[in-house]
Amino acid sequence: MDYQSILDEIYIEVQNFLGKGKVVDYIPGLDNVSPNKIGIAIATVDGEYFSVGDVNDKFSIQSISKVFTLTMAFQKLNNKLWDRVGKEPSGNAFNSLVHLEYEKGRPRNPFVNGGALVVNDIITQQFENPVDEIIRFVREVSQNQDIDFNNEVARSELESSDRNYALAYFIKSFNNIESNIDELMKNYTAQCAIEMSCVDLAKSFLYLANHGVNFYNRQEILTTSQAKRINSIMITSGLYNESGDFAFRVGMPSKSGVGGGIVGLIPQELAIACWSPALNEYGNSLIGIEVLERFTTYSGISIF
Amino acid sequence: MDYQSILDEIYIEVQNFLGKGKVVDYIPGLDNVSPNKIGIAIATVDGEYFSVGDVNDKFSIQSISKVFTLTMAFQKLNNKLWDRVGKEPSGNAFNSLVHLEYEKGRPRNPFVNGGALVVNDIITQQFENPVDEIIRFVREVSQNQDIDFNNEVARSELESSDRNYALAYFIKSFNNIESNIDELMKNYTAQCAIEMSCVDLAKSFLYLANHGVNFYNRQEILTTSQAKRINSIMITSGLYNESGDFAFRVGMPSKSGVGGGIVGLIPQELAIACWSPALNEYGNSLIGIEVLERFTTYSGISIF
Amino acid sequence: MDYQSILDEIYIEVQNFLGKGKVVDYIPGLDNVSPNKIGIAIATVDGEYFSVGDVNDKFSIQSISKVFTLTMAFQKLNNKLWDRVGKEPSGNAFNSLVHLEYEKGRPRNPFVNGGALVVNDIITQQFENPVDEIIRFVREVSQNQDIDFNNEVARSELESSDRNYALAYFIKSFNNIESNIDELMKNYTAQCAIEMSCVDLAKSFLYLANHGVNFYNRQEILTTSQAKRINSIMITSGLYNESGDFAFRVGMPSKSGVGGGIVGLIPQELAIACWSPALNEYGNSLIGIEVLERFTTYSGISIF
Amino acid sequence: MDYQSILDEIYIEVQNFLGKGKVVDYIPGLDNVSPNKIGIAIATVDGEYFSVGDVNDKFSIQSISKVFTLTMAFQKLNNKLWDRVGKEPSGNAFNSLVHLEYEKGRPRNPFVNGGALVVNDIITQQFENPVDEIIRFVREVSQNQDIDFNNEVARSELESSDRNYALAYFIKSFNNIESNIDELMKNYTAQCAIEMSCVDLAKSFLYLANHGVNFYNRQEILTTSQAKRINSIMITSGLYNESGDFAFRVGMPSKSGVGGGIVGLIPQELAIACWSPALNEYGNSLIGIEVLERFTTYSGISIF
Repeated sequence: MDYQSILDEIYIEVQNFLGKGKVVDYIPGLDNVSPNKIGIAIATVDGEYFSVGDVNDKFSIQSISKVFTLTMAFQKLNNKLWDRVGKEPSGNAFNSLVHLEYEKGRPRNPFVNGGALVVNDIITQQFENPVDEIIRFVREVSQNQDIDFNNEVARSELESSDRNYALAYFIKSFNNIESNIDELMKNYTAQCAIEMSCVDLAKSFLYLANHGVNFYNRQEILTTSQAKRINSIMITSGLYNESGDFAFRVGMPSKSGVGGGIVGLIPQELAIACWSPALNEYGNSLIGIEVLERFTTYSGISIF
Repeated sequence: MDYQSILDEIYIEVQNFLGKGKVVDYIPGLDNVSPNKIGIAIATVDGEYFSVGDVNDKFSIQSISKVFTLTMAFQKLNNKLWDRVGKEPSGNAFNSLVHLEYEKGRPRNPFVNGGALVVNDIITQQFENPVDEIIRFVREVSQNQDIDFNNEVARSELESSDRNYALAYFIKSFNNIESNIDELMKNYTAQCAIEMSCVDLAKSFLYLANHGVNFYNRQEILTTSQAKRINSIMITSGLYNESGDFAFRVGMPSKSGVGGGIVGLIPQELAIACWSPALNEYGNSLIGIEVLERFTTYSGISIF
Repeated sequence: MDYQSILDEIYIEVQNFLGKGKVVDYIPGLDNVSPNKIGIAIATVDGEYFSVGDVNDKFSIQSISKVFTLTMAFQKLNNKLWDRVGKEPSGNAFNSLVHLEYEKGRPRNPFVNGGALVVNDIITQQFENPVDEIIRFVREVSQNQDIDFNNEVARSELESSDRNYALAYFIKSFNNIESNIDELMKNYTAQCAIEMSCVDLAKSFLYLANHGVNFYNRQEILTTSQAKRINSIMITSGLYNESGDFAFRVGMPSKSGVGGGIVGLIPQELAIACWSPALNEYGNSLIGIEVLERFTTYSGISIF
Repeated sequence: MDYQSILDEIYIEVQNFLGKGKVVDYIPGLDNVSPNKIGIAIATVDGEYFSVGDVNDKFSIQSISKVFTLTMAFQKLNNKLWDRVGKEPSGNAFNSLVHLEYEKGRPRNPFVNGGALVVNDIITQQFENPVDEIIRFVREVSQNQDIDFNNEVARSELESSDRNYALAYFIKSFNNIESNIDELMKNYTAQCAIEMSCVDLAKSFLYLANHGVNFYNRQEILTTSQAKRINSIMITSGLYNESGDFAFRVGMPSKSGVGGGIVGLIPQELAIACWSPALNEYGNSLIGIEVLERFTTYSGISIF
């Protein structure tokens, strides 16, 4: 299919949305990003690449990192992982703490913050140098050794992490977090502060479109079944409280971050990443969602 | 693919699960069904049929009917429907009433009971003889003019509907239900008391695997986009509070009912229905879930 | 003490609050009451009466009736009553349904609507003519045989009772209401539609200031211990979600209604009733609260 | 009144309850206290003392300290205090975090843990040496310069404070706590680890029975109105989720702690303290509640 023409057309259309949405303003270091950036990149399981716009700018991947750490924890614990964190959608944000209380410290899924903290706790416990291992993993799946953390962003997020500290201590009170909370929060804010380009991001998600196999070196990162399972969690829970609406409109396993990145995939076909920093009311990239919706409409490919 | 061999193999394997689970015991008229029934049927978009077991026994479809009424309401209101009911997963059952209160009487999605009552309210308002129209619709999509309500089941469910009465009045207090509640409850318990066989059920879901087109008469029931959207809601919310786990294990848009029926579909391929009355702790057919999971594993087809 | 002078002074002061607050607007028949009415009446356990303002106008007592029906149910069941309804404060209104769900249909206390419905259910079950018995009780404690229901108000409230219908069916689903819901709601809206004057109301609460004994005929309505216990529930839960603040500012067991009535008492001393229809944001009489707060300040009597 | 005879009789009766209840087991340093201790002490506003049992043993006052810090914060901020913390009962414990979320970090009252943390934050901000000031205050109201913290208990509580850390960070995320959380938690666990005897405790609450005036040196600690207001909060919220039941059975403003202490007061009359370490299911001293209930019954004095 002529993906490049589709991307070019979408790129022109979504210019109309510039000026809408709002760059995240509660994370110093992210709040000064230009809202007018748009980058889109595709990587296919056939080894083709397509892209348009600001595709080489690096941006903070934030919650998208939860997919990488989930993969690492899934590798280590396989299905024992689900004793510690659920795989059900979370309902609305309002009830997140009730859920935790009702379910005795087991977060609903790995993409709510509580779940991501439990996943990070696993990595913090399993690896001697957890932060090094995370960056090593991301460099490998994206085939880019230059990818790194933005230490300033990590530091500033750590300073405004009261809500996440509360979550972590709350879960620890149910004995579902083992690490020292200060260490955990340092590792967690580091993972969120990884910076990548759209092209890196599309490439790095290709293993999930490729039955768990790293396209570049043919190594199995996850089993077919495990890869499918991560995809299923992305479809039910990947876009915060907009997950259902997104599945409804776009129909692609996807994950977003408040840095304005969003990445989705069509199993056996491709991964597509978009970056545009202005967010909608749910904290997802406003233009990113427009891009992915148009892509499934124009290409006619969706999982449904 | 040799679906018949796969069904035959699955049918033998799942015999081991007989004796587990529990037939629904709070609905007189359903509580005397034999727990040892197993029927499985497939209908493909190529016009082929495969089946094994108790495939001609009629059973009460219960919540599976919510897909049919959702389709009818979607035909009438198109996307205006979503002003009245959401499309987000519901989180755990415990919070259903909080959700309704927090979201001012707009249920999270059409498959929670509150949402199904709103959908039934739309049909009750839109049609002069709503119950007749529902049965007419089901007969058409299943190509079986003999399908009917079980009036005894409808009557007995109406008598034990206190919780649904509460939901209906609560939503009406937010002006999101217009009908007289007694009339609404009569229509709603009728829709749940429709009886079909596995074969009927597989055939009746084929339009959702076929981009919205009735396979038998080539009439468009829904647009491609509408059909995909119903599929997306089934994947995030079709199996009560087990939806996430089911998407994780099975990966197929599906809907279940407490009568022991469950039906899923692979877009562009087929619909598969199973009936086995013993339920697991979430109210889904225990053997039905085993059947669907094995089917995706053995056939290798899933949406992820 | 010179209560008359105190009342006269208060009456002048609270004129300043006329024009603030809002007459209840969701109950046809109550929404046309003049917001400028103020009546205050005191009845003491020594048989003295003091009053000022619109003290002979009859008004709809609404939730104040919950104290009378609670007394009647307490007479019938004594402490077995508390198996059906709690005596803990309810926290904020937002969570009322969660409380009911969490505590399996047992309302927190007799003054939340759910609790009052359970109390009315007890009366509906215990008496052949429950509505007649309620009015008979109120006429006896107030020594006024002319007190009656306002049938128009009862009828209009019944028509806008969706929320209470929801509560009643919800509690019935936990088997904590036995009556037919339509009959229960008729009895409940009747009890709320009783009309009394301030003077009637002050007199009618005297038994609670008098250790349970009817001041007028020396008959024991409740034991000393029972009377104290109703007083304790009034202090913790008598003014909706303003109960704590009211106890803090006023310090008197009291009960209010959305008709603008409020009545409080000092054990062994007196009962004081005020009527002024404009309500504050919590649904309590705005001027009524000013009156009671000034009364405890100027008289120097409070329970704390 | 012959309080000594009453205490002697009660002391004999409550021996029957020895062996029931359970000493708190999650606080090292408290878990080794003998469950068979019973001490009761009365201090009257006339300067009389009565006591029986283990009245000179020191015990950990735990949550009872919240009344002292509330008094100190009320002195500093007067009614501005209520911008930071509410005075409404809290409903059930289950919803504590929902309340905080719904009310944007303003705890329901000063006796839920969240509220006590906000009160401690005020003291931490207002005083250079907050811990010294707290102990100075307690020594003054109890007229006992030997009262001190148990540092081992404070240390062990600090180590098992995950839930309180979670609360503190959560409230801080709403900007309703200013202090560094580690410092705050150190001060808070210190306040809870104060040790006093029953006699100390009865004496230390006398100012609240005495319109805010220190009985021993005639200094005004609080205004009459402020003292009454603290009493009203004790009656609605002093015994955790048993407050309503306790007001119903006992009818005395009271405060309890998980160390097994409980102290109540009758305005203008007396303060009565009991210590018995075995707790009931709500975390209140099982024998302590029996003692206070009997005391109001036998003496005939209650506020209702």
